[in-house]
Amino acid sequence: MPPIVGMVGAGQLARMTAEAASRLNVRLKILAEDDKASAARVWSQVSFGSGRLSDGLALFAERCDVVTFDHELVAVPDLYRLERSGVRFWPSAATVAVAQNKWQQRQRFYRAGLPVPAFAALEDLDDAGAFAGRYGWPVVLKAAAGGYDGRGVWIVESLKQAQMVWKEARCRGVQLFVEQFIPVEREFAVLLARRPQGNVVLYPLIDTVQRDGICQELCVPAGIKPVAAEEAGRIAIRVAEDLEAVGILAVEFFLGREGLWINEIAARPHNSGHFSIEGCVTSQFENHLRAVLDWPLGSPALVAPHVVTVNVIGAEDGGDPQQNLPLALALPDVHVHLYGKEYRAGRKLGHVTVLGKTLDQARRTAWEAANLLTLGHT
Amino acid sequence: MPPIVGMVGAGQLARMTAEAASRLNVRLKILAEDDKASAARVWSQVSFGSGRLSDGLALFAERCDVVTFDHELVAVPDLYRLERSGVRFWPSAATVAVAQNKWQQRQRFYRAGLPVPAFAALEDLDDAGAFAGRYGWPVVLKAAAGGYDGRGVWIVESLKQAQMVWKEARCRGVQLFVEQFIPVEREFAVLLARRPQGNVVLYPLIDTVQRDGICQELCVPAGIKPVAAEEAGRIAIRVAEDLEAVGILAVEFFLGREGLWINEIAARPHNSGHFSIEGCVTSQFENHLRAVLDWPLGSPALVAPHVVTVNVIGAEDGGDPQQNLPLALALPDVHVHLYGKEYRAGRKLGHVTVLGKTLDQARRTAWEAANLLTLGHT
Repeated sequence: MPPIVGMVGAGQLARMTAEAASRLNVRLKILAEDDKASAARVWSQVSFGSGRLSDGLALFAERCDVVTFDHELVAVPDLYRLERSGVRFWPSAATVAVAQNKWQQRQRFYRAGLPVPAFAALEDLDDAGAFAGRYGWPVVLKAAAGGYDGRGVWIVESLKQAQMVWKEARCRGVQLFVEQFIPVEREFAVLLARRPQGNVVLYPLIDTVQRDGICQELCVPAGIKPVAAEEAGRIAIRVAEDLEAVGILAVEFFLGREGLWINEIAARPHNSGHFSIEGCVTSQFENHLRAVLDWPLGSPALVAPHVVTVNVIGAEDGGDPQQNLPLALALPDVHVHLYGKEYRAGRKLGHVTVLGKTLDQARRTAWEAANLLTLGHT
Repeated sequence: MPPIVGMVGAGQLARMTAEAASRLNVRLKILAEDDKASAARVWSQVSFGSGRLSDGLALFAERCDVVTFDHELVAVPDLYRLERSGVRFWPSAATVAVAQNKWQQRQRFYRAGLPVPAFAALEDLDDAGAFAGRYGWPVVLKAAAGGYDGRGVWIVESLKQAQMVWKEARCRGVQLFVEQFIPVEREFAVLLARRPQGNVVLYPLIDTVQRDGICQELCVPAGIKPVAAEEAGRIAIRVAEDLEAVGILAVEFFLGREGLWINEIAARPHNSGHFSIEGCVTSQFENHLRAVLDWPLGSPALVAPHVVTVNVIGAEDGGDPQQNLPLALALPDVHVHLYGKEYRAGRKLGHVTVLGKTLDQARRTAWEAANLLTLGHT
């Protein structure tokens, strides 16, 4: 019998992993919070539970040959405990610990000599003032892990603003640290897949266009100078090796005047990799499965000169993409993915991908499709 | 809420349709014979039943906005009865009636002036002798519908051979007819998708390479002269219009010295269209869903100069493709599909698709992968 892969979490990443699992006949079991979750709506092998040890994770893991993740919202001590009892997590508990904590990421990458902005712990608010005294305002306050109201990053211009964020965070029990503000010229991501023994494939660089803290658009290959692109690739591989990451690893970068900075990482299939479903020989979802199963990795090469993915995000006063779907399908050459999530403003409900000979043409069509999908009806 | 598509049958065609349904968030319900069926292993929305009226088809159809098919092994009178009570079948009962019966196909296409080999009914064995007197031996005996032992076509060289087939068929209750033997230079298929109002997209022509009555290999685009290719496309569209087919229609052709002949048709996603998953902008499975939902059809254009698909067929003394999968994945640029069916010699267990700049390169890699998947272990 083929091996069983468990996946903790049943969001759209699990759903798209399931589509890849179906093709390869990988036996995938998904642990879902509830039956409304994106992957639970389509996939047959679903168990229910929160991914905590107290809520069925041990029982779930016991039935799998390897367990991987749709998100990082897991209790790392639970993972360590299960690892000691013989459960194989890919990425490992140690990798997840770093991936879910930006403070640990900064320390880890700084010690490894990788480019990160200056940062410091915040014992109290005076530390923010002292840090700003050294690096100037604004400074960035960041939640070490998680955040609240969907936010984990605050750019503050003054001690007074810092104080407001600080108070709220303390009140919510969220640990903050402070970081140098980098004037960002552009953001991009490096996506790779890595097997347990270190074999790596590197996807082409991805331009990530953010608005309101949400990734709106991916353009591949990124319009980055080859020297910077190669450096980013080398850095991402060093991150993967340092963390002994297994599966997909996404490393997000800032490009500033002084060069590259690591922003943050994700040790799982990632929103920045959705272009790879139609855009690459092997999608991030298939390569994630291959990597955690320690199977040979597939080619990450692009199948077209340009690939553009636009996220379909619920608009205020907008329509439900599900209802608008036939409008978008009338456009030629558009690949539409809808995640089966209930419509809500600001929520990622799907994405569209367009392959093109030119970046302009692919962008135009992809945005046209995304706009049709979120069109409001009066 | 999005519309619900029902699919009768849960083989690999239903499974690959489910993969497309997941991406578009089409609500697909599958009617499976049992829980070992290919699609039932992966898809959440599965009911159990045989697809006969006496076995739950009415209840199943009642919960769907449109019902379509993974196979033609359905009772057409049941479909007519449900159609009269308001169930929407695409393809319709009338189309399925022709698709499941080669005798009806011959009569229908002959009357429409489409190229079919000479054929005649067989009331008794003397009719075969008379037919051979006119067209010469060998002649072809064909089961009008179904067949037995996986066979429905017999090429017979003499009245004595014809008698053996005739006796066995009578004994099994299988109706035969007789047909002129066409020396076949090559076989190919035309695949199209058609909406209820007649809108059609035509896929590029598919070379189908048969061995032992099973399709082994697809090469796209087919190496057919443009004049013949265009004629085949026109004929396929006329077939679709004549049958008022909705969804995918596959028309299989013989190319002989005297030109094109229609071999047979399938009014559903078809084995000859598997190349379209990675090879075309829009796969046959997605376009089948779009067509039966009366949504705009996607582009059927190829995304590479050549696409080759090789079926993975269980070999005598061969190994289980599931076990050999990592061997095949080590080849670059191979797309492997395994259907989750139990290993049995002669059974279609999956397929591999390779896109290439040249036909030779794509064929070489696809066959290498298929051979690795069926490799025996000593």
